[in-house]
Amino acid sequence: MKRITVIGGGTGTFVVLSGLKDLKLDLAVIVNMMDSGGSTGKLRDQLGVLPPGDLRQCLVALSDAPLLWRKLFLYRFEKGDLEGHNFGNIFLSALEKNSSDYNQVIQTASFVLKTKGEVIPITFEKSHLGVEYKDGTVLKGEGKIDINFEEKSGIKRAFLDPQVKANPKAIKRINNSDYIIIGPGDLYTSIIPTFLVDSIADYIFKSKGKIIYIMNLMTKSGQTTNYSTMNHITDLFQYLGRYPDYVILNNGKIPSEIIDWYEKSHEREVVDDLDKNNYKGKISRADVIDNNTYNKEQSDKIPRSILRHSSDKLKKVINKIVTYD
Amino acid sequence: MKRITVIGGGTGTFVVLSGLKDLKLDLAVIVNMMDSGGSTGKLRDQLGVLPPGDLRQCLVALSDAPLLWRKLFLYRFEKGDLEGHNFGNIFLSALEKNSSDYNQVIQTASFVLKTKGEVIPITFEKSHLGVEYKDGTVLKGEGKIDINFEEKSGIKRAFLDPQVKANPKAIKRINNSDYIIIGPGDLYTSIIPTFLVDSIADYIFKSKGKIIYIMNLMTKSGQTTNYSTMNHITDLFQYLGRYPDYVILNNGKIPSEIIDWYEKSHEREVVDDLDKNNYKGKISRADVIDNNTYNKEQSDKIPRSILRHSSDKLKKVINKIVTYD
Repeated sequence: MKRITVIGGGTGTFVVLSGLKDLKLDLAVIVNMMDSGGSTGKLRDQLGVLPPGDLRQCLVALSDAPLLWRKLFLYRFEKGDLEGHNFGNIFLSALEKNSSDYNQVIQTASFVLKTKGEVIPITFEKSHLGVEYKDGTVLKGEGKIDINFEEKSGIKRAFLDPQVKANPKAIKRINNSDYIIIGPGDLYTSIIPTFLVDSIADYIFKSKGKIIYIMNLMTKSGQTTNYSTMNHITDLFQYLGRYPDYVILNNGKIPSEIIDWYEKSHEREVVDDLDKNNYKGKISRADVIDNNTYNKEQSDKIPRSILRHSSDKLKKVINKIVTYD
Repeated sequence: MKRITVIGGGTGTFVVLSGLKDLKLDLAVIVNMMDSGGSTGKLRDQLGVLPPGDLRQCLVALSDAPLLWRKLFLYRFEKGDLEGHNFGNIFLSALEKNSSDYNQVIQTASFVLKTKGEVIPITFEKSHLGVEYKDGTVLKGEGKIDINFEEKSGIKRAFLDPQVKANPKAIKRINNSDYIIIGPGDLYTSIIPTFLVDSIADYIFKSKGKIIYIMNLMTKSGQTTNYSTMNHITDLFQYLGRYPDYVILNNGKIPSEIIDWYEKSHEREVVDDLDKNNYKGKISRADVIDNNTYNKEQSDKIPRSILRHSSDKLKKVINKIVTYD
């Protein structure tokens, strides 16, 4: 069986994993642990736990448990003391408070949710993401960076504070992967934080695993404002020292009303300039858009994209790559 | 197998069930659903759920799941938005929000906790306890009645607002029980509310099942101030129309420092006057005190008794009754 490792957190990773879990693969996800927005951020601050949000999403995406369990873990309380908190986040936090170590948290949660595939936190240590913008401003906290839409100068570099040790399981998994899937997801708040953990970028650089990068559909203001496809890949190179072996690019048409919705925040479809820049990797162009409209829950206070990749379409494209490569 | 049905909620019921689950019995608990104090009261008010607290305690008491699960369900968050809330309460509330009906909640929770015995909510309808004191004052809300320590006039009658229909499973179980165990527990806030649910008192009256009443160790100010053993039993008769067939009375010595602690709230050892009143039921006298000190968690805002019955000692006394009767 091909060993596929998805790196990320966030909604993009949820979408990728939800599709891949149907395939006969040796699947694992290495999860970003620098999330600090919304319910996750509050639980981090108030209870001193590791950020549960991205883990929860990965666990549910890989879950083979009955629908009720999956619904329960994604359920967000709408009122009162618990308003805005996901049940799954609360579960992971309570479990952490009662477990001997975080491996037990992951094992127990994976057992309850019958996950098909391994969920590997990138680190068990607490850390926050920071970025330095090109104008010299420094901002700390994933949650704050994520909503800093007005920033015009572009990100110069990202860093962790404090630097943290990698989970040995993550290193082992990177070494033994046939394919490493990166994205889709916010480049600086969902993807790059994982590469910043001590030694991880080096291990990805040296890994024999081929990198498949799933390009974002839209730019994100304050983070990848006006970024082209090549800009995304150049930023990845800055951290990994290598380019993706495969890039999956959408060529499906995005409905004009969705384009208009994004335009209000000055966010645009990512313009493809890979050929123009003589990009050497393989490019898979396909319609990978989810045509279902995404409805945000009212109790969800974090701004989220309304356009998503399709799990099913991505699954087919990725399957083609890993089968016929 | 003897069919034993425990009626109650609260800590006393937890203690009884924790002991009985070790015996070869057909065990069930019918749970009071009028709790409105602490975390349970907040979740009722804020989320419109049925009160989870007593259910959670009964589920955990009967649980055969690994220690981690039982710890998790009783875990109370100590800080932040979740402060004072039990994980088990949050779990039941989230489950209720995602289930088709409350039977599914009970089934799912019983499955997760591997309960040995059936947990039966007395009703699936929302209701609050009210009491009228002898001076004519009326107070509504189990949580408020529970902490109305200063009340001097004694309770004249208890009622539900609104009246609610009984869970058919509770009626069936009462009809088919060999023994019905009542207490220990606060007479008006843990025991009597169940009898007030439409038709339940009648079914208990008519049941062939023998009633075993486990007498409280201490009086409770504002609720059973200065009550003797006979006073407790007379109040039960007022609602059930029958006297217990068996009464379990403690004859173990309560440490003087515990007596002193209760005396500060004008709470005293329940004085035994059953013989003096020619009580006709059978009386089992035994040392049933738990000698372990009970430590309250700091995040627990509800005043709780520090003296408890021993699960193990009660188990032995009850086993003798149901075996050699």
